[in-house]
Amino acid sequence: ADAEAAAQARDRQARMTKPAGSLGVLEDLSVRLAGLAGVCPPPLPEPAAVAVFAGDHGVHAQGVTPWPQEVTGQMVANFLAGGAVVNAFATQVGASVTVVDVGVGTLPPAGDGLLDRNIRRGTRDMTVEPAMTRDEAVAAIEVGIAVARDLVAAGNRALLTGDMGIANTTASAALVAAFTGADAGAVTGAGTGVDAETLRHKTDIVRRALARHGLVGDAPAAGSATGTAPGAADPIETLAAVGGLEHAAIAGFVLGAAAERVPVILDGVIAGSSALVAAALAPACLDAAVAGHRSTEPGHGVALAHLGLTPLVDLSLRLGEGTGAVLALPLVQASVRALRDVATFDSAGVTEKQ
Amino acid sequence: ADAEAAAQARDRQARMTKPAGSLGVLEDLSVRLAGLAGVCPPPLPEPAAVAVFAGDHGVHAQGVTPWPQEVTGQMVANFLAGGAVVNAFATQVGASVTVVDVGVGTLPPAGDGLLDRNIRRGTRDMTVEPAMTRDEAVAAIEVGIAVARDLVAAGNRALLTGDMGIANTTASAALVAAFTGADAGAVTGAGTGVDAETLRHKTDIVRRALARHGLVGDAPAAGSATGTAPGAADPIETLAAVGGLEHAAIAGFVLGAAAERVPVILDGVIAGSSALVAAALAPACLDAAVAGHRSTEPGHGVALAHLGLTPLVDLSLRLGEGTGAVLALPLVQASVRALRDVATFDSAGVTEKQ
Repeated sequence: ADAEAAAQARDRQARMTKPAGSLGVLEDLSVRLAGLAGVCPPPLPEPAAVAVFAGDHGVHAQGVTPWPQEVTGQMVANFLAGGAVVNAFATQVGASVTVVDVGVGTLPPAGDGLLDRNIRRGTRDMTVEPAMTRDEAVAAIEVGIAVARDLVAAGNRALLTGDMGIANTTASAALVAAFTGADAGAVTGAGTGVDAETLRHKTDIVRRALARHGLVGDAPAAGSATGTAPGAADPIETLAAVGGLEHAAIAGFVLGAAAERVPVILDGVIAGSSALVAAALAPACLDAAVAGHRSTEPGHGVALAHLGLTPLVDLSLRLGEGTGAVLALPLVQASVRALRDVATFDSAGVTEKQ
Repeated sequence: ADAEAAAQARDRQARMTKPAGSLGVLEDLSVRLAGLAGVCPPPLPEPAAVAVFAGDHGVHAQGVTPWPQEVTGQMVANFLAGGAVVNAFATQVGASVTVVDVGVGTLPPAGDGLLDRNIRRGTRDMTVEPAMTRDEAVAAIEVGIAVARDLVAAGNRALLTGDMGIANTTASAALVAAFTGADAGAVTGAGTGVDAETLRHKTDIVRRALARHGLVGDAPAAGSATGTAPGAADPIETLAAVGGLEHAAIAGFVLGAAAERVPVILDGVIAGSSALVAAALAPACLDAAVAGHRSTEPGHGVALAHLGLTPLVDLSLRLGEGTGAVLALPLVQASVRALRDVATFDSAGVTEKQ
């Protein structure tokens, strides 16, 4: 980040016609975005583009979710038809939606517009073997980088992460545990809604996968305290072992956005766990990352704390698709808009605090 | 609220292509808005209009704030010139801003567009005498009702509260204490930013005003626990004793929106304390009220808890003007947009959870 542009933004916030600090989190955000852009005020983060990366998961065979695997492909068709929640939200805030098949198992006849970047038709079962090879993981990261680059080349000035993948909260939990050292019990959640018995089983599956790949940390089971992070030493290997193709692509998307100095708004736990991968590869990429929201998944809070990111929206969402990121977009835009447009005490002839 | 329309919305939320309950707070909100409108899906809450009610306060003479009183009028001019944060935010989300002088003391030569509904040039000092007469309070309420009615007649389908008034967090604290029974110490905050000594003095002023008008509740000083609410028996009398002209107008604005069955998004503690007045007069008006955000003012949390409203945005804002309400607007719109546009499992051919 550019310290001088950030300092200029901080200074301007202090001269704007409002009590100092009264915009709270949005003041800090505007300063970060000025630092990212290297200029104050930074460009308005619009137009904005959501990229929904879709993939399937071999661990589905372990019974971690009540949803059939074919729902991933069916929802891809739903996105392309404009029928999903992310479409409705994106329409409301004026963002485009790009759907990327990076690893879907089976795809019904889908509408136009799908970006076919399929690396493989679903990952392998992480409890048995690595979910991906290193080459597959790297190829999926490169998909994400390329999508980010292309969306910025098309004129977008804000990127938003989206995802679709039945069972992908299981992979997310494993990634969060591996990159933070947290216990499986502290990061595995109900996802799209599983009962208590399935949640116990799902937690056990995450724990088994971590053990299988030598990724068990030393943090105590209680709470979100994190210890050594066994997955951080070789991020690609960890991603390949327990991640998903959409996680890999989203990690690349974050790296790509950062390379373009364009903000990338993270959605929920899928994005949070993917950002852990990106940050392990290149910590500076977090300069571009904005936490759109906090989902109800416990692993998401652990990931955000580890990343040092403050979520903008906290409405008990647990849908994914990019919905939480899209809801945060107007807040991000408003923070920059204020920095650009608001008068100063001098220019408006308003008397300052005595 | 219309129970049948609300039930239809609840049913539709369960059939939409997403896990049941996964939109969290926004599902409940869409159900409330269907009940308010009496039809499912309800109309999209757009176009949207912010009304900024401005007034001055006699209690300013007691030294409760470091800001000079003339800043109220100067900021009115700033709103009209489009230079304030509420203008920037409203531009970003596509809302209009209407500025209403309901009680400003002195007004510099201002730009076009001011609604002159001045009832009196600032309230009296509540520590000495009632801030308003009953007639003045009622007239200011009627200003708010009329502004709401006119904005809806002009086609607006969402109303947002805004306020400007140096020292108006002092009046808000007194109103919250009077209508919830909370102690002055639990509801008085730093407002636009006062030091610890001024905060102690401000709290003492609020306590003195409550005692002066027989409005001291029986809640313990600690926390936000509320007891009997001495101000609820005669809401107009209470409002006149310790409220502000902008508080009265905002109470009327909430009543007017409810009468039109149009949602009204509340900003911070000024709106929260005003909504307590409106709810004491006509509890059903809360069907129309949406808590836009939670500010850092302690009295705001107490008011929201008493009103039973869940804030949508929580970003440590403490600016007022309507800024928190404006930031919440896209979230309110998105909740309705989803209910209107999202496909059902049947219509999209997506398999349901097993």
